[in-house]
Formats: sequence, structure tokens, C-alpha cells
Amino acid sequence: MITSIINVIVITMNSENEVFPDGFIQFKNDKITLIGDRKDYVKPAECEEIDGKRGILMPGMINLHSHLGMIPFRGLQDDCVDRLRKFLLPMEKAEMSPELVYASTKYALSEMLLGGITTVMDMYYFEKETARAAQDMSIRAFLGETIIDEGACDFENPYESLEYAEEFIQQYQNHPLITPCIAPHSTTTCSEDVLCKAHELSRKYSVPLTMHISEMDYEIQYFMEKYQMSPIAYMNHLGIVDDRLVAAHCIYMNDGDFAIMKGKNASVAHCIGSNTKAAKGIAPVKDMIEHGITVGLGTDGPASGNTLDIITQFKLFADFHKNINRDRSLFPASSIVAMGTINGAKALHIDEYIGSLEAGKQADIVLLETESVNMFPIYDPYSTLVYSANSSNVSMVFVAGKCVVKDKKLKEHNLKDLREELMNQMMQRENNLFQEHLL
Amino acid sequence: MITSIINVIVITMNSENEVFPDGFIQFKNDKITLIGDRKDYVKPAECEEIDGKRGILMPGMINLHSHLGMIPFRGLQDDCVDRLRKFLLPMEKAEMSPELVYASTKYALSEMLLGGITTVMDMYYFEKETARAAQDMSIRAFLGETIIDEGACDFENPYESLEYAEEFIQQYQNHPLITPCIAPHSTTTCSEDVLCKAHELSRKYSVPLTMHISEMDYEIQYFMEKYQMSPIAYMNHLGIVDDRLVAAHCIYMNDGDFAIMKGKNASVAHCIGSNTKAAKGIAPVKDMIEHGITVGLGTDGPASGNTLDIITQFKLFADFHKNINRDRSLFPASSIVAMGTINGAKALHIDEYIGSLEAGKQADIVLLETESVNMFPIYDPYSTLVYSANSSNVSMVFVAGKCVVKDKKLKEHNLKDLREELMNQMMQRENNLFQEHLL
Repeated sequence: MITSIINVIVITMNSENEVFPDGFIQFKNDKITLIGDRKDYVKPAECEEIDGKRGILMPGMINLHSHLGMIPFRGLQDDCVDRLRKFLLPMEKAEMSPELVYASTKYALSEMLLGGITTVMDMYYFEKETARAAQDMSIRAFLGETIIDEGACDFENPYESLEYAEEFIQQYQNHPLITPCIAPHSTTTCSEDVLCKAHELSRKYSVPLTMHISEMDYEIQYFMEKYQMSPIAYMNHLGIVDDRLVAAHCIYMNDGDFAIMKGKNASVAHCIGSNTKAAKGIAPVKDMIEHGITVGLGTDGPASGNTLDIITQFKLFADFHKNINRDRSLFPASSIVAMGTINGAKALHIDEYIGSLEAGKQADIVLLETESVNMFPIYDPYSTLVYSANSSNVSMVFVAGKCVVKDKKLKEHNLKDLREELMNQMMQRENNLFQEHLL
Repeated sequence: MITSIINVIVITMNSENEVFPDGFIQFKNDKITLIGDRKDYVKPAECEEIDGKRGILMPGMINLHSHLGMIPFRGLQDDCVDRLRKFLLPMEKAEMSPELVYASTKYALSEMLLGGITTVMDMYYFEKETARAAQDMSIRAFLGETIIDEGACDFENPYESLEYAEEFIQQYQNHPLITPCIAPHSTTTCSEDVLCKAHELSRKYSVPLTMHISEMDYEIQYFMEKYQMSPIAYMNHLGIVDDRLVAAHCIYMNDGDFAIMKGKNASVAHCIGSNTKAAKGIAPVKDMIEHGITVGLGTDGPASGNTLDIITQFKLFADFHKNINRDRSLFPASSIVAMGTINGAKALHIDEYIGSLEAGKQADIVLLETESVNMFPIYDPYSTLVYSANSSNVSMVFVAGKCVVKDKKLKEHNLKDLREELMNQMMQRENNLFQEHLL
């Protein structure tokens, strides 16, 4: 079956940054077959033709960092100092269950799909449940079981987590949409032995390793005092920094760190919304890019970044990085859209398959309507995306050629049911901690 | 006719910051008559009862700074250095007409109403057209004719603008929704004589004066070199700083400036989105508030801030000010919502009439639905508003008791028609400058 979408402004994000002001796309099953200017369009026989009504068509967005199971914590004590240790960690340990992770993940993935994200990288607990939810929701997902020394809601012992993680990797090694990963929690919450064992899994199965690095001020201080090294230098010393690494945050970076990350072809998941809301600082993305490091965007989890769409990150990225560098021309809108699409794909080393709209690539496609009040006029569709759009403008989404969002609604699921399932799970917890705080 | 909205989470923004988790509001004609907890609700005879479906009910938002006529420039060369002088000013002078201002203002006001803004302060040209549009759209508006030395699209000569401005003030002196103002453009674009004559009109008719102050780096340098004074100190020296002043931007402020603004009870329109997108810096709002200055929020014009809703400013405000002060607990979400509601009313000295939901005040009311994916769960409705909501969640809006937005649509206007009217005006310009740049 061939599908054509016509009458659209096409942002390809190919290497020439081609835009077709009056363009079309055609795809067959999971692959893009043709893309171009309307004048070159011929309706094939047996083709579903969709009128894009002058919307903006772009590659599916790629979210490099999230914790999908954490919807129950969204909006809880947002303005509280040290809320992580006061609220999130204890509640997570006391209340999180496989069923709750599954329900939360389906809900979080709904939000991502509805906002135009077609690929997500996640690190959380009970990651087999996350994978089950990702399959249900038909999203492309890179999923890593989180390993943490102090134990978490799924395992008391990090070595048990490592065993579970290895099983998980084996289970999903050949899945068309799910790529298993390994996710040691952070530089300070995992022992050297645990970090090295996690990395060994990444090497053995050739799967990505993702973790929090250089996110916390105390983290920098700790490594400097103990080893006179930055966290990245120390991770490199342990052999963990390689081209399978997707390092989340990287707020504190020095020239040595840039050289290591570039030299080892490791990537950064930049989470501007989460980092600034928590008053942690602004990662030096200008320097990273000048050093040739691949930088993609992440929403972080719903407890940290609250909204789970990349479009919100576009505007935050523009405003924060232009402002801190005192240069409105730095990071033109097209470069920011690149970070949320093709650069995310490069960070995951799958830019041959996704990240831009090109014949032969996977049909991960997003259509934004331009009928809403905020979407007029359009001089430059990148500007419209970065400075004007919000997630509610996303009207249609395809993952690997399958329509998952139509007319701004999930096509195969009912959001109300997903919310009810999640709420029921939250209300059934042993210690009633969610109930206690809910309005 | 009495209207009740029941089954809502009510954020009153009264002096106790009262929230009714299961509340209601009642209003008769233009005034709120009753507000409280559901248990105290009795349905009156002859009452339209609206089921708020567990949405968030809040005071209409107040936008302290805008240029409503500038929709035609939105998204044009956003990332260009000095775009103001390269594109905006020449195109404005060449192409702007009364008809275009009228059509643009109706469109801009649609966006504001749809995003929950019920009161707006504007400065632009052909302000009689702006007033006509504001009346058509039934919004509460503070409108100031802009005076600028070099002349603009309406008058070549600032003294002609001053005459027009005085007529305009006389014409709207007793309008229920429109408050005429006077708007000298900025500290560097108006001569002392023009500034003083503008201020004289503000004094004579007791109307607000709004202008750009301390926005530009070159402005600070100019006043320092010429007078060894800050722009605010110099404006104060001219007698312009008083309780009728709403100073837009105020990015560069020193201790003397804080003292002057506080001493004279002048207010600040803080435009975080516009300022940071243009890489101008972050106004020191923490210091302003510590000095007791009233600070409200502004979107700035659609060419500068792009989106015309206050909810976008909420999130930007939180992220920028928490981050620059390295304190996530600074500016809790409730204080940010206050800036977009009651503090805006205080800045305009009409907090007896609007800015909070209290019996006796004007029925300027906004309802946000909480059924969309981003609006769950709710622990704290302020957090939901600041960190999760976007303008598309606004479902119902009343201005002075009149329903202007229902089910996320304008009640008395068709957005498509308003866009078509605006587009037609843009296409009919003499020099085809818009046409040339449009996609």
C-alpha cells in the first residue's frame, strides 16, 4: 500500500536542508519512496492520498532522554529544593510497580506521539514493562534498564539488575522498533564495578549505553576532590566513553571533556528544559558543537521536564542559547530543528534509517497543521516550528509507515482509557503516597 | 442573567492565594457574585450552569506589553542580527496602513483571547484602528498611540502623532473596556521635548504612559556617556517616572533605578521571551521584587515574542529566573501565575476591578481543560499551569462576563475569516514586501 501526503510544506532535514514549499511525500509500507516538489507528483494507482492542507511536514522528532515510568510524579513539589531525595526517590522505591510502569509508559508515549516524537530513548526500572508498552504504542524506542547501587523499585541489588538487563537485551536484540540498551544511573550512584559491568554488556551485545553525566554540581566536586578529574575524564579512564555512549545532560564540561567526547565519538542528550527548571545551569552546546560533538535533544522525565514533546525544547533551546551567547543569529531555527531530528538520529547512529525525510529511509513522519492561530504567517517553516508552534499543532504522525496519530488523536488507543488505567494504578499503591498528595 | 461554572479547580489569586480544589464561580452580567467551595453552591433560579469538567478556573491573564499591529512580521528573519533596522522598520514604514493595523489587531487579539488573555496593553500606530478592533473582539485593552521622532507609518512628524494621541485619549476617555494611554516609543527614539509633551498628556488626562526603557545595550551606553545617568535616572530627571508609567523591558537596572521605580510607584512589563530570543539578557526581576516594584508579564509583539499568550511566558519565566539565580525554589509557580494576573492588574492600578477571582470584581475568567494529555496528574494547579500547560488548553474565556471563547473557539468570530482578511491586506500593499518574503 502506497500513501501520499500532498499539499504540504516539506522540511526534509537532508544534508542540503532542502525545503519544498509546495511538496509531497510518498511511502510504501515502512519506507519513504519519493519526496519532492508538487510539480513532480503523480498519483500512483492504489494509493491513499492525504491532503496536508498546507501543513508543515517534517521527520519524526527524536527524544534522547526520558524516564517514561514517571508520569505519576509530574507536577509533584516542583519548586521544592532537593525534591529528588525528599519526594521522588522514596516514593519511587515505596510505590513503583511493574503495572504502574506499564501504565505510565503507555501514557507518556501517548504524549510523545501526540507531540510528534517517533523515537525515544528511555532509562527506567522494570524495563521489560516499558518495552511491552512501547510495542503497544507502536513507537520506535531505545530502552535501557537502569542500574543503581542503592537498589530501586525493581531490584535491591545492582547485580540483579544487571542480570535482568542482560536478559532484556537478549530478548529484544532483533526487534524491528525496539533497541535494548543498558543504563547505569549516573557517575556517582554506581560503583566502578557496576559501571564497568554495565559497559561490558554494552560492548558484548553492541547496544547503546546511556547514563546521567556531569549533571550535578556535587558530582563535579566529588570527582575533582577524589581523582582530580572531571566525571567524563573519569568515565573515560574506566573505558566507558565510546561511540555507544549517549551522555545525558553534560552541563559542566571542560576542554578535556570536549576532546574526549569528540575523540570517542560519544553523543550528548541535551535537556535544556529539565536542567534550567531545576536551576542546574546551561550545558555549553555551542562549544560542544564547535568541537564536533553530536548533540540531540531530550525532554527528560515528566517529573523533571514536565512536558514530553520536543517542540517545547526547541523554543527553550533558542531562547537560552541565543541569550547566554548574546547572539540572536547563533543557532538559527533550522539548526535547532536538526538537533531534534537528524542529530538525534546521528547520536543513536541510525541516521541512515531515520532523522530526515529521504527516499529509502523509514517513514517516521510528522504533520503539523497551520490552521491554528499561532501558525500564521509563515515566512520560514523552521521559525514557525521553533518560535511559534506547540505540541498541540501536531495533527498526524507515522512511525515506520504506520499511522499512530490522526486528527490530533491516537489512532489505536483511547487516551481517556489510558489515563484511567494509570490513575487506577496510582490509587492502588500500598502506601497511598500518590493519593495523599493528589489534589 | 446569572452564570455558574461548577466542577472546577479554582485558582482565585486573592490576597490569601485561595484555591478551591472542588469549587465554583457565579457571575451576573459583568461582575462576579460568588466564588467558593462546591459544598456552598446552590443553583440559583434562572442560571446558566456550566460544567467545568474538573478544569482549572483562573482570572483572565494580563499582557502588559504588545504591538498588536505586527502580526504580518511574525516569523520574518527571526535569526537576523539587527533585523529591526534591516527588515521591520523599513517594511513597517513602507507597508503599514490603517486597514492592515485593524486586520492584524483583530487577529492578534484572537490569539490572545484563545490563550486566556483578557486584558492587554498595546503600543502601536494608527491606534484608533487598534481600538476599533479591540471593541470588535470584546477584550479589555489599554491602548497607546506610539510617538517616535523619526516618524512612522501613520505620521511623519511626532507632533502630529501627539495631536492624534490627544484626540484618541479624548475619544476613549469613558469607554467601559478601553483605556487610552500614551506611548512614546523609547528613551532614545524620542527627543526630550517629545517625551515631556507625551508625559504632559498622561498627566493632563490621568492616563497610563508606556514606553520601552532600558532594553538596549547601546541605550545604556548612550545615557551613561551623555549624562552619566541610567536611562531610568534620566527619565526620572525629566519627570516622566511616576505611578502612571508602565516601563517595558527594564533589562539593565542598577540600585538607583530600583529606588526610583519603587519610590515613584512605577511598574515594569517584563518580557522574558522577547528579551531572550533577541539575546538581550534577563531583567533582574528578583531584585525588582525585593525592592517592592510591581512586575507584570508581557508577550511583546508577535515579531519579537512570536506567540501571544502568557502561559508560554510562565514557563520561560520559571526556567530563566530559577536558573540564573541557581535556585529551583525561587519564584514558586504560584508567584509566577500572580505576575500574569493580579500583579499585572496592580501595574495598571486596576487591581480593585480585575486580576483575581473575587466577588465584586469583573468577571474576567479563564477555564483550562485538563483532559489533554499534558494536564495529568494534578498535584498543584499552579505547577500544572506553569510547567505543563500551553495555550491550547484554554477552553473558555469571559471578558466582563461575556463569553468570548467557547470550546477553544472564538464565540463571535470566525478565525479563518480573520486570517483571510489579514492575508488579503498583506497582499494588497503597495510595495509587495510581505509577498516577496512569504513562503
